[in-house]
Amino acid sequence: MYKGGYMGLVLRVNLTTGDIKKESLDPKIAKDFVGGAGIGINYLVKEVPGDIDPFSEDNKLIFVNGPLTGTSTPCASRMSVVTKSPLTGAVGMSSSGGHFPVELKFAGYDALIIEGKSESPVYIYINDDEVKIKKADGIWGMETFDTQNYIKHSLNNQNIRVACIGPAGENLSRLACIINERRAFGRKGTGAIMGSKNLKAIAVRGTKTVEIADEEEFKKARTRMLGAMKESPLLYSHFSKMGTPMIVDAISALGIFPSENFSTTGEKSYVESIGAEASAQSIVGSEPCYGCPVSCSTIKLARGSSKYVGALSDPEYETYYSFGGVTGVTEHDAIIAADNLCDRLGLDTMSAGVTIAFAMELYEKGILTNDDVGGLDFRFGNHEAMYDALIEMAYRREGIGKLLCDGTKVLSEKIGRDAYKYAMHIKGLELPAYDPRGAKAHGLNYATSYTGADHNRGYAFQEIFAIPIPAAYDRFQLEGKGKLTKWNQDVRTATCDCPTMCAFLLDLALPSIALQNTADLLTALTGVSYDADDVMVVGERVNNLARLFNISTGLTRDDDSMPYRIMNEPLRDGGSKGHYIPKEDLDKMLDDYYTERGWNLSGIPTKEKLMELGLV
Amino acid sequence: MYKGGYMGLVLRVNLTTGDIKKESLDPKIAKDFVGGAGIGINYLVKEVPGDIDPFSEDNKLIFVNGPLTGTSTPCASRMSVVTKSPLTGAVGMSSSGGHFPVELKFAGYDALIIEGKSESPVYIYINDDEVKIKKADGIWGMETFDTQNYIKHSLNNQNIRVACIGPAGENLSRLACIINERRAFGRKGTGAIMGSKNLKAIAVRGTKTVEIADEEEFKKARTRMLGAMKESPLLYSHFSKMGTPMIVDAISALGIFPSENFSTTGEKSYVESIGAEASAQSIVGSEPCYGCPVSCSTIKLARGSSKYVGALSDPEYETYYSFGGVTGVTEHDAIIAADNLCDRLGLDTMSAGVTIAFAMELYEKGILTNDDVGGLDFRFGNHEAMYDALIEMAYRREGIGKLLCDGTKVLSEKIGRDAYKYAMHIKGLELPAYDPRGAKAHGLNYATSYTGADHNRGYAFQEIFAIPIPAAYDRFQLEGKGKLTKWNQDVRTATCDCPTMCAFLLDLALPSIALQNTADLLTALTGVSYDADDVMVVGERVNNLARLFNISTGLTRDDDSMPYRIMNEPLRDGGSKGHYIPKEDLDKMLDDYYTERGWNLSGIPTKEKLMELGLV
Repeated sequence: MYKGGYMGLVLRVNLTTGDIKKESLDPKIAKDFVGGAGIGINYLVKEVPGDIDPFSEDNKLIFVNGPLTGTSTPCASRMSVVTKSPLTGAVGMSSSGGHFPVELKFAGYDALIIEGKSESPVYIYINDDEVKIKKADGIWGMETFDTQNYIKHSLNNQNIRVACIGPAGENLSRLACIINERRAFGRKGTGAIMGSKNLKAIAVRGTKTVEIADEEEFKKARTRMLGAMKESPLLYSHFSKMGTPMIVDAISALGIFPSENFSTTGEKSYVESIGAEASAQSIVGSEPCYGCPVSCSTIKLARGSSKYVGALSDPEYETYYSFGGVTGVTEHDAIIAADNLCDRLGLDTMSAGVTIAFAMELYEKGILTNDDVGGLDFRFGNHEAMYDALIEMAYRREGIGKLLCDGTKVLSEKIGRDAYKYAMHIKGLELPAYDPRGAKAHGLNYATSYTGADHNRGYAFQEIFAIPIPAAYDRFQLEGKGKLTKWNQDVRTATCDCPTMCAFLLDLALPSIALQNTADLLTALTGVSYDADDVMVVGERVNNLARLFNISTGLTRDDDSMPYRIMNEPLRDGGSKGHYIPKEDLDKMLDDYYTERGWNLSGIPTKEKLMELGLV
Repeated sequence: MYKGGYMGLVLRVNLTTGDIKKESLDPKIAKDFVGGAGIGINYLVKEVPGDIDPFSEDNKLIFVNGPLTGTSTPCASRMSVVTKSPLTGAVGMSSSGGHFPVELKFAGYDALIIEGKSESPVYIYINDDEVKIKKADGIWGMETFDTQNYIKHSLNNQNIRVACIGPAGENLSRLACIINERRAFGRKGTGAIMGSKNLKAIAVRGTKTVEIADEEEFKKARTRMLGAMKESPLLYSHFSKMGTPMIVDAISALGIFPSENFSTTGEKSYVESIGAEASAQSIVGSEPCYGCPVSCSTIKLARGSSKYVGALSDPEYETYYSFGGVTGVTEHDAIIAADNLCDRLGLDTMSAGVTIAFAMELYEKGILTNDDVGGLDFRFGNHEAMYDALIEMAYRREGIGKLLCDGTKVLSEKIGRDAYKYAMHIKGLELPAYDPRGAKAHGLNYATSYTGADHNRGYAFQEIFAIPIPAAYDRFQLEGKGKLTKWNQDVRTATCDCPTMCAFLLDLALPSIALQNTADLLTALTGVSYDADDVMVVGERVNNLARLFNISTGLTRDDDSMPYRIMNEPLRDGGSKGHYIPKEDLDKMLDDYYTERGWNLSGIPTKEKLMELGLV
């Protein structure tokens, strides 16, 4: 039995019946899946049939903290939410930092499982032991920042933390996310699941503290970790100051900053207009997550006389891609404003931007007409059309709103014809900001990640920062990418998504010690003994379990695919010119990956592997 | 010496030198001026020369709580800010509720006096006894809601309360106000004074409590007051549900809801589009001030498919006038959105709307050209042009922004010619939402209020709600209006602006007991004995002292005037048709008023009166 780290309770709220139950957290589940994504996927597999409509009453929304959440471990403020995604039909897993996760932990819960569907809008209010389902007719329709502020005011407690949806989630946009503060449980349409349940928000106030099994050992582990963080050549010196947007330049130099819907990566340079130096001019400060000494969330303000003046937001690198490169936009203030708008509307910036870029290309090719896009000038680079389209999408308005609001895959299917050739998604999830043609492990991870084209499930930092851990890899080569991708996915799951911990630490500071560090922290914190191998196995176990769920939804090897463009169009310019991933290369990598995973060549985990992992 | 109610300290922050001092509150000042506006004006007169440029370093910004602020007295959450107004050149006094005032009190201060001028942007952070001047380069340029949130985040304390300026104050718009939460220290350009001092915000956290001299007597007084509130036929039954916008219908019926820059009050009815019933459809909840059981601040949300969808705000009756009737706008969602916009920009809704209405009339008459208004279709009723103009004004942009951002008087002087005939201001302050032609005591109060055309300095509820206290008055008659206006001004100052207390209580619930109630509360709270007459004298003392300051600025009887239109154009339609206030009627009322005040016919307080009040 764990002696620390966990609060010991899972809160279950059924919105159909109004039942509110508290259950004990199973120590075996805690040991085997640690927390966050792991425990969340475990509940998903046990309680949600793979073949249901994601918007049905039977889908669940499972928020899970990690044992590290709310402790003094730096950068461990996070939690995961797990559901069957309406965007991919697969496991929808998304994590967020901020203050909401720790607040739920301080209220005494390791997890919150939301079931059923309310007949009218409600929100859940958790005040330590007291849990209520409250009417939300009034706040239905509010933007997310207003919702958060309004709930704090109406409950007369500024210390309440709120996770909520905006109009996008209410209107069941499959691109809707869940917002807390400025932070998102992004992508995969988790916000639409809240919307489908008529759940506007979850408001939490907690005053408990997290127990620590062995204070002295925990402090030692924490000190070692802080020491490793200090040694990073990037973390405090660059990342603290500029956050993720600092890498626009580096990715551009590698020729993998996707531009104009992946039709180019080098014709137009984005470095001058929205690169690290240019964008840093707008930084006015930062808003750290709970307990984070790094504070990478750089807040930017649109100044001067642009039409976006006054807009304030913290666009990440991925948003410089989705509202910058991939849409061909070079107006920096427009990126800040669109980021802020999406946060307010509860719309995922990445998926929304890529979908708009797709529509822009269809428009430029004459496949979408002026009528289809409501008279907007929908050419690449038109930031005003992009901005206006976001509003139409969040409100699912007739015309371009309805057309784009469910993402790239749905748009591609609606248009038919040749549209699929320009549709940049895998399993329905839009591609992130690293063109896989020039970074093959990125591609393999996109193809095999259990959430679709998701860099966060197995980010190949080896290909970007040239960090030779666990070994050195050439980004253009196929060789060894199966093993590397398994390693990246398992380590990331085990050391970030489950305990829970910010993934930036893994990429920038801790790659060589992540497994041992996690083992030390977990052992000291929970009183349950872990070594580095145990931790790695947790990652493997969770990735296998997620694969089982995806298989149960009907996904097969054929879905571990790549967009047409990636497989058929060599990059025509830039630092990765000439590279692409033809189908046979993808197949080679998949065979390699499946073999490394102990799966058969159809991508199905073998019984032996599942037994080894304790999953059967 | 007071035994309760006051914290005993005045905090003085000099932004030129960086000096921070704490002084004892003088018990004689406390006794004679009670608090809020009274103590504030006392400091203004002593420390600020009347003839200075309001934007000079010598001007001060004096925030003062009342003894009731932060006690359990209902509706006593308020404070005043006093300065030399850049809009009127006279006493600038403005009050606000919310939570900021009580927070300053709980931090241990009765008043905060801000002097000098910082060289670069700063904000003041008060954390109980600890007071710091902090750099604000980063937050300079932020909108007000962003500023509040950002400061809470960056100081990592959600319980901090912030009063701040937006772009309008930074750009020295004479219409700029100071915002805390959604609430404004409105009108008179107090926000521009903060801007001129390079002071972006004041952030406060306080944890002290207010002492009460005689708990038992205080509780009794409070119970009597709550009883009187319950007996009000309007307070809980109507005002709690609808707030001030409920009176659009009543004022329209009286024919004094000013429309299209006071050119009409009845040609177009606003009741159907933005009247009480129509506007109440948008109510989604309320955000009460600290300790307020009434909670009149009704939050409204723009829904449906209007271009303003998602806008959330709490427009008051005066804003239904300034962004509705007087600008000819009937789109309810536009009023919500413009109100929200002004709160974010830190722009006063009343003065901004009236100034826009003035420009609209000049445009319709061909006095302003298309070029002057930057190509906007600036006819009455064009809500989009109104909305866009507000942004131009807050940023003092070339063209219409610069032209309108300093208000009606400055615009009138810039245009010259016949413009003055349509300029609806007194002493530079734009007229409120009661056409004085059909409510003569309103007119006399506008003309003589020490802050310019300000309904809040002596609201003649007798003319609106037919409440016969202190006597019944016909709204069209001149007789007795001098005495009534003195009574209204002194009672309001004494029972609302000084203690401090919400004026709505006086108007709607407590007119017959306000003086005695205030005396009882103050006596029990402070341990210093007051009777009803003492309280009334406080009001008279403060109004006389404010008059002395205004005289020192160069104001004379000639400035106790009325807009040309009010004196020369009879109302041409509606329930007050044919009425106006010709110069000779105004003169009669002024003679009457001055005499009642014990002033000479030049409007100068006699030495006898000043001695009687202890002012010389």
